[in-house]
Amino acid sequence: MLDALREEVLEANLELVRRGLVIYTFGNASGIDRGSGLVVIKPSGVPYEKMTPADLVITDLEGRIIEGKLRPSSDLDTHLVLYRTYLSIGGVVHTHSEAATAWAQARKEIPCLGTTHADYFHGPVPVTHPLEPAEIQNDYEENTGIAIVRRFTGGGLNPSEVPGVLVAGHGPFAWGETALEAAHNAVILEYLAKMAAATLTINPAASPISTELHDQHFFRKHGSGATYGQPDC
Amino acid sequence: MLDALREEVLEANLELVRRGLVIYTFGNASGIDRGSGLVVIKPSGVPYEKMTPADLVITDLEGRIIEGKLRPSSDLDTHLVLYRTYLSIGGVVHTHSEAATAWAQARKEIPCLGTTHADYFHGPVPVTHPLEPAEIQNDYEENTGIAIVRRFTGGGLNPSEVPGVLVAGHGPFAWGETALEAAHNAVILEYLAKMAAATLTINPAASPISTELHDQHFFRKHGSGATYGQPDC
Amino acid sequence: MLDALREEVLEANLELVRRGLVIYTFGNASGIDRGSGLVVIKPSGVPYEKMTPADLVITDLEGRIIEGKLRPSSDLDTHLVLYRTYLSIGGVVHTHSEAATAWAQARKEIPCLGTTHADYFHGPVPVTHPLEPAEIQNDYEENTGIAIVRRFTGGGLNPSEVPGVLVAGHGPFAWGETALEAAHNAVILEYLAKMAAATLTINPAASPISTELHDQHFFRKHGSGATYGQPDC
Amino acid sequence: MLDALREEVLEANLELVRRGLVIYTFGNASGIDRGSGLVVIKPSGVPYEKMTPADLVITDLEGRIIEGKLRPSSDLDTHLVLYRTYLSIGGVVHTHSEAATAWAQARKEIPCLGTTHADYFHGPVPVTHPLEPAEIQNDYEENTGIAIVRRFTGGGLNPSEVPGVLVAGHGPFAWGETALEAAHNAVILEYLAKMAAATLTINPAASPISTELHDQHFFRKHGSGATYGQPDC
Repeated sequence: MLDALREEVLEANLELVRRGLVIYTFGNASGIDRGSGLVVIKPSGVPYEKMTPADLVITDLEGRIIEGKLRPSSDLDTHLVLYRTYLSIGGVVHTHSEAATAWAQARKEIPCLGTTHADYFHGPVPVTHPLEPAEIQNDYEENTGIAIVRRFTGGGLNPSEVPGVLVAGHGPFAWGETALEAAHNAVILEYLAKMAAATLTINPAASPISTELHDQHFFRKHGSGATYGQPDC
Repeated sequence: MLDALREEVLEANLELVRRGLVIYTFGNASGIDRGSGLVVIKPSGVPYEKMTPADLVITDLEGRIIEGKLRPSSDLDTHLVLYRTYLSIGGVVHTHSEAATAWAQARKEIPCLGTTHADYFHGPVPVTHPLEPAEIQNDYEENTGIAIVRRFTGGGLNPSEVPGVLVAGHGPFAWGETALEAAHNAVILEYLAKMAAATLTINPAASPISTELHDQHFFRKHGSGATYGQPDC
Repeated sequence: MLDALREEVLEANLELVRRGLVIYTFGNASGIDRGSGLVVIKPSGVPYEKMTPADLVITDLEGRIIEGKLRPSSDLDTHLVLYRTYLSIGGVVHTHSEAATAWAQARKEIPCLGTTHADYFHGPVPVTHPLEPAEIQNDYEENTGIAIVRRFTGGGLNPSEVPGVLVAGHGPFAWGETALEAAHNAVILEYLAKMAAATLTINPAASPISTELHDQHFFRKHGSGATYGQPDC
Repeated sequence: MLDALREEVLEANLELVRRGLVIYTFGNASGIDRGSGLVVIKPSGVPYEKMTPADLVITDLEGRIIEGKLRPSSDLDTHLVLYRTYLSIGGVVHTHSEAATAWAQARKEIPCLGTTHADYFHGPVPVTHPLEPAEIQNDYEENTGIAIVRRFTGGGLNPSEVPGVLVAGHGPFAWGETALEAAHNAVILEYLAKMAAATLTINPAASPISTELHDQHFFRKHGSGATYGQPDC
C-alpha cells in the first residue's frame, strides 16, 4: 500500500542522516497521498540504519493507524496539523539540526542576510511563540502544529513561499510539495542558519538584503518566471 | 570471563571514536556486572584501532585487577566512586569531547535551552567545584569522583535524571544503565553543549525553556508514562 | 569540441564538491579557450553526481550557446564580464561556501591577518558595493560582474594579485589562469575566511600583518622571484 | 639512505592530512638522524597523495642537499634552527591548521584552560614576537626559527615541556622526540586551540586551571613518575 510513497519517505529520512541533520533516532519525515488522504511517516525511535519501507507507518489525517506494526513518530500530530491546514504541502520534516535548533533555542527569527536564503525563503525564517503551560500539558504535539499555523496566519505568511519555521525552544520544521523537497528544504534551512550566525559574529550590525535583491533571487527559482535549472527537470 | 560485557564495553569505547568524541587514546568507557561486582574498563593509552575485547581490564570495586595484562585507564578510580555510590549506574564514560569540555573549562553549567536537552537531562548539566590542592595531589582520580558525588548530593540531583556532569577544568563524565547507554549519553551531551554555545552566541539573553516544556519532553522519554519509541524496543 | 577543457571544467566543479564548498546544485565553475573565445560552463541546476563532460555548455563571450542541450548556469553573465574584462583570467568559480559567504553577507572585506592569506591574496579580499535596484531588476547577473570590475578598478586592484572577491549579500567569486586554479583559489578563500572570523573572535583588535611580511609571502609564491614549489611543477 | 626515517617522516606528513591539519600542499614535517646529523624533510609544493619516501629530501644541518631531486620545503631553515638549538628535538612539524593559526593570527598565547592542555603542554602555548622588517627581507625562514628560540630563551621555556609555539601572524610549529611525535603534538595543539577559543566564547572570564592541577596532569604523562599508558608501550 502506497509503496512508492513509502520509498520516498524512507529516502527523505535517510537524506537527513546523510546530510548530518540527525543522529541516532532524531528527526522524522513524512509524506501524504492527497488522493487517499493517507500519511506515511517514520516510526518512533527506530535506528535509521535498520529502517525499511515496511517499517514506516500509514495513518489517516486524524492519526488513526491504517497500516504498520510500529508506533508512528511522536511528532505525528504536528505533521497532521500542517497537512490538514495547508493543502499545498506534500511532505513534512522535523529535525534538531544544530544551527537551526540554536536559532529556535535563541527564539530569534533568521533574517535574510543573503541570496542563498532568498533563493529558498521569501522573507525571514519565522519563529513561533512559546506555548502556554496548558498547551504543553494537553495535546502537546497538536498544539505545536497549531502554534506554527498561528504564526503564519498572524504574520500573513504563505507556506509556499516560506517552507519552514523554527519552533521556539525546540527546533525546525520544514516542508515542501513532496517529502524529498521537505528534506531538501530542511538541509537548506540548516545551511542558512549556520551562515546567518557566522555573519552576525563577523558583523553584529549586518542588515538584511534589499527587497529588490530578495525578490530577484526568490523569483529566479520560483513561480512562472523562474529561469533556474532545466525546463524539464 | 564476562565476555558479553567485554564486548559491550569495547563497543561503547568504539562508539566514542565513531561519533568524533575522542582522538588517539583519549576517553574511556567501562561497564559493571552487578552480580559479581566486577568492572570492565578500557586499558590506559592503547590506540582504539588495535583494541580487542581481551585487552580490556577487569577489576573489583576497589580497583584490584582481577583479569588483564594491561594497566586500566588512569581514570578508573573516578569510575569506581560512581559505581560504588550509585547502584543504578551500569556504565560510565569519560571524554574530552570538544564542546562539553569547553563548558567544563568555562566552569559554567549548561542551561536547558531546548527540548533536545530536556529529552535527556532533567535540569541543567551541572559542573563540579574545583578540587583543593590537597585533593589533587593525593588520590586525584578518586577525589574527582567524590567531587561529582558532592555536587549531586549538594544539589539534590538524581543521577538517573541527570546522566552526566562537567568536571571543572577537565571534561565530561556521562553514565547510564549500561556502557552503551553511557556512550549514547556522552554523545548527546556533546550535541547539547555545542547547541547551547551556539544559542548563546546568537542571543546572549536566551533563557531556559519553561518547566512545563522541560517536563513534557523528559517524561515523554523516561519513566512509566513514556510514549517515545516502541513498547518492546 | 573542446574536450580537454570540458574535462577540466568538470573536474573544477567536482573539486568544489570534494572540498565541501557546495551542496546540491550550488556553485559553478567555467573555463575559457582564449584561442576560440569559447567558454565551457556548468549547466544550471544539474546534480554534481550525475554530471558528465557532455552536460557542460559551450557559449561564446556574448553568452550565445554554441554547443549543449542544457541551459548554462544562471550566473553565466557574471563569468562573461570577468572573461571579457580581464584577459589574464582563464577560469572562474562561484560558490556559496559558508565562511566566505558569511563575510559577503556581513559586507566586510577580509583583512590579511596572516601568511596563509598573504600566500594567495596581495591585500584584503575586497567586497563589492551593493547593486542599485535598477541594476538588480535588469541584467542582474551581468551587473554583478560589472560591480566586481568597478570595485577592482576603483580600488586600483589587479585581478592577478587578488584572485577573488566577495559580492555583497551574495557570496564569493574566485578566478585563476585555469578553471582548476580558480577552484583552488575558491578553496583557499573559504579557508582564509574561516580563519579570519576565528581570529577576530579570539582577538577583536587583531591587526593585519605588516606590509613586509605580506610581500615576503606573496612573492615567495608569485612572480619571477618565486621560490616555492618545484621549478618544473 | 635513511630509509626508515624517510618512511617515518612520510607517515608524519600523511598524519597531518588524515587529521585535517593540512590541505593541498600546506604544512611540512621533518625528522633528524642525530648520528649522522642529517635531516629528512618534505619536498616543497608536492601534493600529499602522490608523495613517496623517495620524494623526501635529505639535507645536512646547514641546509645543503645531500640526497634528493626535489627542492626541500621552503620552511627548511626554520626546522634547522630548531634542530641545531635543541638537541632533544627529533622531529618538527609546521602547519596552518585552522584554530592554532587563528590564535597565531590573533597574536595571543593559548592559556591552559583545562587538563587536555596540561596533559601535553606545561604552561601556555607561547606566541613569538613579530619579526622586524629587516628580519623578514633577509633570511626570513631562518629568522623565524630564531624568533622561536628567542621566545623560549627569553621566557625561560623548556622545549621538552612546551612542544610547540605559535609564530605571530603565521601559524604553529610543533616538535617531539620523533617526527611522528611532532605530528601528534601538532594535532593536539590544534585540538587545544579549538577548545580554548570555544571556552572563551562561552565565558570570556574563564581563568587557567590551578598550578596543582596543571602539574598533576602533566607529570601523570611525562617524566619518571608518569603512570599513563603501558610500561612497555
